[in-house]
Amino acid sequence: MCEANAYLLREGREELVMESVDVLEPRGDHLYLRSIFGDQKVIPARLKTTSLVEHKILLETTEAP
Amino acid sequence: MCEANAYLLREGREELVMESVDVLEPRGDHLYLRSIFGDQKVIPARLKTTSLVEHKILLETTEAP
Repeated sequence: MCEANAYLLREGREELVMESVDVLEPRGDHLYLRSIFGDQKVIPARLKTTSLVEHKILLETTEAP
Repeated sequence: MCEANAYLLREGREELVMESVDVLEPRGDHLYLRSIFGDQKVIPARLKTTSLVEHKILLETTEAP
């Protein structure tokens, strides 16, 4: 399988948001995520970077601190 | 391997931008891509959606038409 886990960078720490992400789609200042299991989330975040070889998607919040 | 191919949606068509993308990183209104082979590109585009199960990253241009 070739999906990746999504982490949200918050206050210097990486919090797991979703495992086995298939779909990653920006929607305004939010991000829609869907896993291979059909789980869906919309969170106030943007893509920061990926390392798909390491199965990793790193997000950062779009919320004001 | 778990990388994906990146396509740029332009005038309704999907043009292959890079195969075997590892790193995908927004930089202002541009997007930095690096493949598992070390190829690097910075293009005027943003993430539109992914289907990592299908090894696919779809981008859209940020250039004015």
